Amino acid sequence: MTASHNDLANAIRALSMDAVQAANSGHPGMPMGMADAATVLFTKHLKYDPTRPDWADRDRFVLSAGHGSMLIYSLLYLTGYAAPTIDDIRNFRQTGSPCAGHPENFLLDGVEATTGPLGQGLAMAVGMAMAERHLNARFGDALVDHRTWVLAGDGCLMEGINHEAVGLAGHLQLGRLNVIWDDNRITIDGPTDLSTSEDIKARYAATGWHVVECDAHDAGALDAAMKAAKADPRPSLIAARSIIGYGAPTKQGTSATHGAPLGPDEIAGTRDALGWNAEPFVIPDNVLSAWRSAGERGAEMSASWRSKAERQPEWDDFSAAMSGEIGDALETAIEAHIAGLIDAPVKEATRKSSEETLKVVNAALANTIGGSADLTGSNNTRTADLGIFSAENYAGRYVYYGIREFGMAAAMNGMALHGGVIPYGGTFLIFSDYSRPAIRLGALQQTRAVHVLTHDSIGLGEDGPTHQPVEQVMTLRAIPNLNVFRPADAVETAECWALALQSKEAPSVLALTRQGLPQMRKEGVVGNLSSRGAYRLKAADAERKVIFLATGSEVHLAMNAAAQLENEGVGCDVISMPCWELFRQQPDSYRRDLLPDVDPSRILRVSIEAGVTLGWAEYTMANGLNIGIDSFGASAPASELFEKFGFTTDAVVSRVKDKLNKS
Amino acid sequence: MTASHNDLANAIRALSMDAVQAANSGHPGMPMGMADAATVLFTKHLKYDPTRPDWADRDRFVLSAGHGSMLIYSLLYLTGYAAPTIDDIRNFRQTGSPCAGHPENFLLDGVEATTGPLGQGLAMAVGMAMAERHLNARFGDALVDHRTWVLAGDGCLMEGINHEAVGLAGHLQLGRLNVIWDDNRITIDGPTDLSTSEDIKARYAATGWHVVECDAHDAGALDAAMKAAKADPRPSLIAARSIIGYGAPTKQGTSATHGAPLGPDEIAGTRDALGWNAEPFVIPDNVLSAWRSAGERGAEMSASWRSKAERQPEWDDFSAAMSGEIGDALETAIEAHIAGLIDAPVKEATRKSSEETLKVVNAALANTIGGSADLTGSNNTRTADLGIFSAENYAGRYVYYGIREFGMAAAMNGMALHGGVIPYGGTFLIFSDYSRPAIRLGALQQTRAVHVLTHDSIGLGEDGPTHQPVEQVMTLRAIPNLNVFRPADAVETAECWALALQSKEAPSVLALTRQGLPQMRKEGVVGNLSSRGAYRLKAADAERKVIFLATGSEVHLAMNAAAQLENEGVGCDVISMPCWELFRQQPDSYRRDLLPDVDPSRILRVSIEAGVTLGWAEYTMANGLNIGIDSFGASAPASELFEKFGFTTDAVVSRVKDKLNKS
Repeated sequence: MTASHNDLANAIRALSMDAVQAANSGHPGMPMGMADAATVLFTKHLKYDPTRPDWADRDRFVLSAGHGSMLIYSLLYLTGYAAPTIDDIRNFRQTGSPCAGHPENFLLDGVEATTGPLGQGLAMAVGMAMAERHLNARFGDALVDHRTWVLAGDGCLMEGINHEAVGLAGHLQLGRLNVIWDDNRITIDGPTDLSTSEDIKARYAATGWHVVECDAHDAGALDAAMKAAKADPRPSLIAARSIIGYGAPTKQGTSATHGAPLGPDEIAGTRDALGWNAEPFVIPDNVLSAWRSAGERGAEMSASWRSKAERQPEWDDFSAAMSGEIGDALETAIEAHIAGLIDAPVKEATRKSSEETLKVVNAALANTIGGSADLTGSNNTRTADLGIFSAENYAGRYVYYGIREFGMAAAMNGMALHGGVIPYGGTFLIFSDYSRPAIRLGALQQTRAVHVLTHDSIGLGEDGPTHQPVEQVMTLRAIPNLNVFRPADAVETAECWALALQSKEAPSVLALTRQGLPQMRKEGVVGNLSSRGAYRLKAADAERKVIFLATGSEVHLAMNAAAQLENEGVGCDVISMPCWELFRQQPDSYRRDLLPDVDPSRILRVSIEAGVTLGWAEYTMANGLNIGIDSFGASAPASELFEKFGFTTDAVVSRVKDKLNKS
Repeated sequence: MTASHNDLANAIRALSMDAVQAANSGHPGMPMGMADAATVLFTKHLKYDPTRPDWADRDRFVLSAGHGSMLIYSLLYLTGYAAPTIDDIRNFRQTGSPCAGHPENFLLDGVEATTGPLGQGLAMAVGMAMAERHLNARFGDALVDHRTWVLAGDGCLMEGINHEAVGLAGHLQLGRLNVIWDDNRITIDGPTDLSTSEDIKARYAATGWHVVECDAHDAGALDAAMKAAKADPRPSLIAARSIIGYGAPTKQGTSATHGAPLGPDEIAGTRDALGWNAEPFVIPDNVLSAWRSAGERGAEMSASWRSKAERQPEWDDFSAAMSGEIGDALETAIEAHIAGLIDAPVKEATRKSSEETLKVVNAALANTIGGSADLTGSNNTRTADLGIFSAENYAGRYVYYGIREFGMAAAMNGMALHGGVIPYGGTFLIFSDYSRPAIRLGALQQTRAVHVLTHDSIGLGEDGPTHQPVEQVMTLRAIPNLNVFRPADAVETAECWALALQSKEAPSVLALTRQGLPQMRKEGVVGNLSSRGAYRLKAADAERKVIFLATGSEVHLAMNAAAQLENEGVGCDVISMPCWELFRQQPDSYRRDLLPDVDPSRILRVSIEAGVTLGWAEYTMANGLNIGIDSFGASAPASELFEKFGFTTDAVVSRVKDKLNKS
């Protein structure tokens, strides 16, 4: 007995409603509404091989409407991926099941991105499509020639980030990107017309997209729409008019199906309406067999690709790029660069030091793709050799992202997830508030991306409090699995870049100054001192009474204050602390050496950082002194601001002496 | 000698280029390009009275492209506001001048909003236009009948938030909102076609806007376009094709004029090209006189408005609303509500407690406007009596914001800036990452808005790590001038709502649970205990060895752990700490009473909060114990997650005893 399209689609519906019911939690409406579209996509259009989920030239599928996670779990099971198993689906949303509430890229092969925070899936897909075109330009059709498919809902399309993503994709003419819009006219609060009156199709057309419409429950129409999307050289929006919770007799078409189990009665009614008689979590043999056959379509394609690919002259380079390894050339080049700095110290802004490092990095590593959200000259992110990534030149390695900080960061995540490239991108540190949700999602997804965040304190001067980050460095430190680097000079900047690029499973932030900084490190050392997260830059000469802990532009201030205190017989250590996260990972013995466990009244610990003091007590202890800024900044020349906020040698020395005298 | 339109516009250009040159910092290109549009607006269309900047029925003007701040400073000076003076303009961007790098609403009357973070000015203007229509519906044309004007650049229109703002304005048919788009085709990185290919006019039309085009250097065309905008019932986009840095002979039309002084030679050339012979900071008498006359247009209008307004029966209510005072009725009503809870304690989620409080608040205060970013049922933000705010019913007090967290928060800021209403809006706490830039800008602007952020920990359960805030409470605490409340039960929730509403000059966050919590406070007290930020919920019975500090859903856990420890002879205080910011403001004696300054080895301090531990050492000291979550969450039922992450009575007791035994 063969299986019909409806049988295949109903298998998704049944698994979805039953799993949500079993979990007593989840979102059945979307998978039930999009089952037909997903069936057509996964049986006729998507290029994938469940037995080789890491096939480099597979199509990428991103479920941007991540709450409909049962859709992708159903598809992965039905098409024959090793996981999830039917038991995993039975345990949807339970401890230990890879079928988590939202799809997590680190739990299941075939989940190309972690989604759920709306709009970001689509925006990451733009990055995947950019990576695909870039690698195609670099390595040729035989190695790289695939598409990126997205399933997005009204929520994704209302979020601001979709405007940024759509604008970027339209401008770059990413014709390999096809977005299926689940046009169900329902949001959580009710009909979409409660909150929007937009003509979405016209908006996409205005942004350079191809738009095609179809009935989301007509397999033939879906097939034709997907063919049209593939044929068009522009990115495509497939507006698929759908019924949320399709099949649920009394609830379909309403927000009642969106985010709650249907309930036993409605589920029974749905079985009747769909003619689906199988028990929960049972897929009839003919249906499963048809699904598995669809999954097997890809095996020959992937084998054929591989045999051809391996014969290409670019194969080794391509494999190396896809491996994500950065090789020894980079380390050697950065070491040579640092040796040059030791020979001829510089005074420069760390954003400039970053540019000098990037000259070395971009020459040594062909995989980097840089860019900036319209602050190229300020972020110092562009080096001469990169070429511009554009619709006319996908081989270019520098992206003018436009004024789209969030879209940029999400695209960088998408590139990193795609693999083969290492993205970095710049904006002002203050605007990490705009891109923060993507920085976080990159950390959760364990992707490598480097966020180059310049103008990192009141040191930016006249632009004033809207542009002066005071809490951003600390709040970025609060994000798990994110390395926040705030280097003190040109040498630390080069070290931190090396660490960021070596970090395959965590993104990094580089917080860099606008203003010039003297070089603190003038002696060569073996290894990368910043890799310990913190290190003793200066040991006390006189009896140690004070330990300074400082980062970035405040390290030289700590050194100056220490020098003055030493003149007065007060011995001071100075710890430079470019990365809290790496310091936390050091052995206890190393940490105790820098920060000995002695009575705080005997050795005063003083933190200096031109940002909020919140958090520093962890290192300075209850009786420590935390020098920072716990208010908004102000508009004035930088030197006046540093004086106003107490960041001068005299002010620091005076506060330290007051504190020493009191304790 | 009368002054021509060009004379008036050139006065803006001269002040702008000279002030930027004097500061050696700033953005001359935008004010020079938009001088004609601003002149037409401020001499012919904008309703304002420089002598009464607080005139309630004035038009609001928002310079969304805030970097062009010299435009508004020029206009305020020229039209005769008390400030800035010409000396303030001479001191543009210098210490103490109200002419800061970006316009700050708290420094100058006539600056309706702090702008600079791109896109947010436009989004706040949407909120102002909403407030205007709402107050018009409530109080009538005689009292409220004005427009909101915005000047926005390409940056504002590329940012994602503009999509959310534009969608909301189009849906709500805010015909009193008119946006002048500085269509200069230049961004910082170069021509706009480096990064965008969008047909902006078509996009706005697709979103329900009226679009009119004009030459930004043709006064007649600008006038006609503004008339058309005023006549159309939809929100209007005036696409004003402009030349950035208009008048600068070699630099106009290029990004070289955007963000740097023109230089002495170019400025001299501009003077020649414009026929402007006056010295820097000197405005010829005839020109200043013409400008002042334009400014004086409004005096009669405002006087006439006032005399009519005062005769309206609604005048007293209107004045009370615009004063921003909330009156005693609210306090009394909340006290009665709390008394009811003391009489009949409840076990409920604090999001539900918030809803119960809102029933009281919305009945007692006619000024509240609530809403949610499509999570009404989850955020519990809607009470029955509000009515829906829509194009058909501006009298409604509940806004379906759609899936637009950032747009919602920015609109709330705009409403608060407009005055007459008190906005609150809900989303999940995790999505404060999306709205964070607006929460911050509200704090900087000293506006009152209440962000109702529910599902505030792993306690939300199955939705998993994308939806589980672990660092959000702490990172919100890092924002200056923001009160972050995390109430422990129904009583604290009511207290925190009262405090949030009383806070006229700082926004508030309420972090609320999805899951039910037992009521901790069962005895009546005089006053609002949460107003101290932290208070002793339980004093030690046995000799005090431990002080627990906990917030929100972890307070009852601390109480349970304390009870068990007391059984074993270990005396424990429990401090409930709903608001760090308010606790910091308490006198030293109060803080020392709760947290005595004794050797930490004698009394162990233990923090419990289901979020990052970063920051807690400030209160628990170096030898304290911080129980928290320093990784991402996971997908599972809430009770299993609390167990997995160590938030059970047994786990807490065990860790405390281990620590006591070690010290």
